[in-house]
Amino acid sequence: MSVRILTPAAFIFVLLSAPAVAGSDPAIPPQTAFVLNTFLFLVMGALVMWMAAGFTMLEAGMVRSKNVATICTKNIALYSIAGLMYWLVGYNLMYDGVSGGYFGSLTWFTYPDEAALKTAEDYGSYAAASDWFFQMVFVATAASIVSGTLAERIKLWPLLIFVLVFTGFIYPITGAWKWGAGWLEVAGFLDFAGSTLVHSVGGWAALSGAVILGARYGKYNSKGQVNPLPGSSLPLATLGTFVLWLGWFGFNGGSQLALASFTDASAIARIFANTNTAAAAGVVTAMVMTQLMYKKVDLTMALNGALAGLVSITAEPLTPSIGMAALIGAIGGVIVVFAVPLLDKFKIDDVVGAIPVHLFAGIWGTLAVPLTNPAGNFITQLTGIIAIGAFVTIVSSILWLVLKFTVGIRVSREDEDKGLDQAELGLEAYPEFGVGSQRM
Amino acid sequence: MSVRILTPAAFIFVLLSAPAVAGSDPAIPPQTAFVLNTFLFLVMGALVMWMAAGFTMLEAGMVRSKNVATICTKNIALYSIAGLMYWLVGYNLMYDGVSGGYFGSLTWFTYPDEAALKTAEDYGSYAAASDWFFQMVFVATAASIVSGTLAERIKLWPLLIFVLVFTGFIYPITGAWKWGAGWLEVAGFLDFAGSTLVHSVGGWAALSGAVILGARYGKYNSKGQVNPLPGSSLPLATLGTFVLWLGWFGFNGGSQLALASFTDASAIARIFANTNTAAAAGVVTAMVMTQLMYKKVDLTMALNGALAGLVSITAEPLTPSIGMAALIGAIGGVIVVFAVPLLDKFKIDDVVGAIPVHLFAGIWGTLAVPLTNPAGNFITQLTGIIAIGAFVTIVSSILWLVLKFTVGIRVSREDEDKGLDQAELGLEAYPEFGVGSQRM
Amino acid sequence: MSVRILTPAAFIFVLLSAPAVAGSDPAIPPQTAFVLNTFLFLVMGALVMWMAAGFTMLEAGMVRSKNVATICTKNIALYSIAGLMYWLVGYNLMYDGVSGGYFGSLTWFTYPDEAALKTAEDYGSYAAASDWFFQMVFVATAASIVSGTLAERIKLWPLLIFVLVFTGFIYPITGAWKWGAGWLEVAGFLDFAGSTLVHSVGGWAALSGAVILGARYGKYNSKGQVNPLPGSSLPLATLGTFVLWLGWFGFNGGSQLALASFTDASAIARIFANTNTAAAAGVVTAMVMTQLMYKKVDLTMALNGALAGLVSITAEPLTPSIGMAALIGAIGGVIVVFAVPLLDKFKIDDVVGAIPVHLFAGIWGTLAVPLTNPAGNFITQLTGIIAIGAFVTIVSSILWLVLKFTVGIRVSREDEDKGLDQAELGLEAYPEFGVGSQRM
Repeated sequence: MSVRILTPAAFIFVLLSAPAVAGSDPAIPPQTAFVLNTFLFLVMGALVMWMAAGFTMLEAGMVRSKNVATICTKNIALYSIAGLMYWLVGYNLMYDGVSGGYFGSLTWFTYPDEAALKTAEDYGSYAAASDWFFQMVFVATAASIVSGTLAERIKLWPLLIFVLVFTGFIYPITGAWKWGAGWLEVAGFLDFAGSTLVHSVGGWAALSGAVILGARYGKYNSKGQVNPLPGSSLPLATLGTFVLWLGWFGFNGGSQLALASFTDASAIARIFANTNTAAAAGVVTAMVMTQLMYKKVDLTMALNGALAGLVSITAEPLTPSIGMAALIGAIGGVIVVFAVPLLDKFKIDDVVGAIPVHLFAGIWGTLAVPLTNPAGNFITQLTGIIAIGAFVTIVSSILWLVLKFTVGIRVSREDEDKGLDQAELGLEAYPEFGVGSQRM
Repeated sequence: MSVRILTPAAFIFVLLSAPAVAGSDPAIPPQTAFVLNTFLFLVMGALVMWMAAGFTMLEAGMVRSKNVATICTKNIALYSIAGLMYWLVGYNLMYDGVSGGYFGSLTWFTYPDEAALKTAEDYGSYAAASDWFFQMVFVATAASIVSGTLAERIKLWPLLIFVLVFTGFIYPITGAWKWGAGWLEVAGFLDFAGSTLVHSVGGWAALSGAVILGARYGKYNSKGQVNPLPGSSLPLATLGTFVLWLGWFGFNGGSQLALASFTDASAIARIFANTNTAAAAGVVTAMVMTQLMYKKVDLTMALNGALAGLVSITAEPLTPSIGMAALIGAIGGVIVVFAVPLLDKFKIDDVVGAIPVHLFAGIWGTLAVPLTNPAGNFITQLTGIIAIGAFVTIVSSILWLVLKFTVGIRVSREDEDKGLDQAELGLEAYPEFGVGSQRM
Repeated sequence: MSVRILTPAAFIFVLLSAPAVAGSDPAIPPQTAFVLNTFLFLVMGALVMWMAAGFTMLEAGMVRSKNVATICTKNIALYSIAGLMYWLVGYNLMYDGVSGGYFGSLTWFTYPDEAALKTAEDYGSYAAASDWFFQMVFVATAASIVSGTLAERIKLWPLLIFVLVFTGFIYPITGAWKWGAGWLEVAGFLDFAGSTLVHSVGGWAALSGAVILGARYGKYNSKGQVNPLPGSSLPLATLGTFVLWLGWFGFNGGSQLALASFTDASAIARIFANTNTAAAAGVVTAMVMTQLMYKKVDLTMALNGALAGLVSITAEPLTPSIGMAALIGAIGGVIVVFAVPLLDKFKIDDVVGAIPVHLFAGIWGTLAVPLTNPAGNFITQLTGIIAIGAFVTIVSSILWLVLKFTVGIRVSREDEDKGLDQAELGLEAYPEFGVGSQRM
């Protein structure tokens, strides 16, 4: 807000009429707006942080009991590494001085010097640390996708080295292209909360890893048949899905990046409603389809239907009507039901179904933006999807291959059989139940 | 806020003195108030959404392992169906043009045309979508109550058909009577956050279902003795209770419907404190009573004591002193301890104790309103309880009976024995533990 | 805000320039500030309440299956008792009229008479009930620490009697010394969110209890070797850790006690970022150290590393740079890795590692304050740590001893062997799994 000199009468006119004009400048004073926007980032960011627990529970429920402690370890470790790397490298690489280019600066994030902040303009529209926090939890989300796909056979430390590079460099670079105001932003690519920038980026990294790592022993037999290897705890997987659903309100809602106006608050409200509706439609669609196709409802498909609905609406949760949000989410549910068996045909072993959910539904959501947002353009959306997909796949594949031929990425056959908990951690997730109880 | 023409001096007087007069009009300007009220709905609504996970965990912990995946499926499905039906039918049926009558319009909810919103008055005091979101999560809560009572023997799809009608029509109609400004509102019936409108409505639907569906095989023997059939995971049931407790702050706090004034913010603070105190008193009372009556503390009674305390305070969480809140919650705890064995006497099989918690404590809470709120009237409260109870019971019973004599509502004896997870979903919640491990 | 008489021109100058001066008085008007500060307390307090679920899941996962239902019972009971005692005694004992002394008044907390609140100054800067709520959830946190250490052998009711005295008297008295503006506040002791006042206080009470209660049978053999007695569910322990991590944003962020200014909102943002970074550093440090020391990563150490990082940063989450926050948290992680075996050397049996996490890292965090906060003083910090440690240890020890020699605090050897769930509650947490399934 620039400080303008007004006659008293003119000033009063502005003051009385201002709140009546939606979104007009003088309406909410800078300090109040700063507080509201900052609080939005913190509360919504806390919800997104909570998604780390959601991925952990989802994955812990979807793996066999002999690998549960390891997947828990990987998830708390990757969230931690993401937080440290995004401070040390990622944030400034993604946001600092990209200006139409390909990446920002190789410096670490520091807090602004509060003593030097004198005016409202110095402060800006939100606290710098609140934006860092909100963006940091996003990169952790993307990293979580990788651990789910590659569960039950990847070594702990090599995965964490991948996460370190992924959260410090790969995600921030493609992030810079759009959210850092890089070349894709200039080109008009639209991705509101990250169907591509978060979910597909995680999905491509997971896909390249799954191809290079190979399937779990016993998942596919020589005749091409699929052996389901059911997860150890469906209630934990369900809990994880609900946690992710809750966290997604923060993920999409906070991506409005501001709260302090009629327009922003209304937008966030629509985003909440659309996000919920897309997820609900994904669940119902996946349930009805599995009932029709297999004569049984599949709970894991219902859960992945919810997540696919959520990923689908993430590229544009604001402009759709609530009905269009339902449609976009429903198609996400359809994608999951068809894509899970499709991956199996190619013997790509994705333990939790993360590739259909995050990559395929992410592509769908990104392509769907122009359906409701007139600023969107199908060709530009496709350009962004392909450019980001190519970059992430190539860099991730190189990294996976380097890891494979140096430290190795896969546990031995024996370790895979006895489970990663015994092999990698020397303990058991459930020592008194399941596999554990047989040893008592 | 109407735009008044003031002399500069008068205006300045208003501006300087206004904030000092609590709740006076000019205090918080419209745009700031709109943002605050909208944000209240979204944050509190997210907490209520989280209750869906709470019900899921509570119910997953209270059923036997052979039915856990099915109860998870039912819960994520009913939350999704509630969200879709409340958009397609429920919201406008409950709120649109009821004006003293019995129901609103049979139209679906749409977002306001933002382009047409020009003035602060057009916007109103909160975003339309934020209110929709907040009310939507309430209807899901009511539906969750039904699934808990009827667990372990009801078929999946018939339950979901019931949920579809319940969330689209039954709940919205009784909701319209009070919150939609219908005849009960005109009559002076008081129900702040829904002891009756949410919890008893769910409870009546559950009770009519339980009677028509019958008890689980093996629950009652021919001599009238009760076989407890303990739940598979008390930590998950405890987790669910904590989730519900947390969500209840949103449930009761958000029901103030506004945040942006001294009065509203103070009210929400009291509501939080009273809500917590009632739940705490419910826990302690249930624990002390089970210790005195049975010489052992019963964890499931403690959990249900918390929930009964919460339901009891829900009809009036604002006017009680903190001491009265404790008393109201404590009586909720007493009700649960006596009502659970009472239902067993009538061979009404309520798997999770939802009828004592939501129906009986809901009635108590509704009757208790006049104790602390001078605007309340015992006869009017009773009228509302009876009218809503009669309507929900009659309509629900008809619906249950129609379902029973068409598609059927109960699984076969064999399916009940082997568990709904095997029968209805063809999978297992815990394939390596319990029942599952015996098949390995 | 005092009502000053200004000429129109002067007034306009104030209004236009005010928001530009960070933190200056007129910037956010009293009613808006009241609403924002109150909402901060409620939202952050809800996150802290959620930590009760976190402790419950952490402890339920860390005990053996035969004691899981009892630990759940203890946790929901202690949260409830804390809430009631803090209303009946604790809050006013901690805050009402301490003024440089040792404790406040022995009166219970009541809501202010809203009808008597006429001016903004009457209301103050936040709703009284919101502050009560926020402080109440803190005392519950401290009590949770005790139940974890003493699990698997302490009797239910004697523990709850201890909790009653602890939450009503012990915690509030030491709290009064600093946060109630007592003698330690006057002396210049610094403890932003309670590394000492909450975590060490809980830790000292747990330590004195552990010494007096003795170790579990079978934990240490006659040769001084340690038998690990692994917990029943590492995914639940992981979930609990994530819940605590999330809740800690409320714990530290809400302790800023105000939101409504540039300074406050910026401070809370830094607190969120520092809190997350310290936890992340604690995880990574604990993982790397266990890998180096034991050639295996230990998940429970990683979880406790997160918690130790969180406790460490709690005494001063605002003044550190993000790098210093990482260092402070990392040292917390180091402390845990060394302290857990150290306690075992002294045969102090701490089931969940709460003493290293909450007491030792709490001391470290309190001593670290002067490193980044120039207002801090090492000697004063040490004085506070010792004074509080001495008071809590002496009073707790007397109380444990009185309980030991009257009602007894330890279950019989037979009860400990068959598990507290059978002995104390007459039920099982997992009747179909583990120990339970062997009885089927």
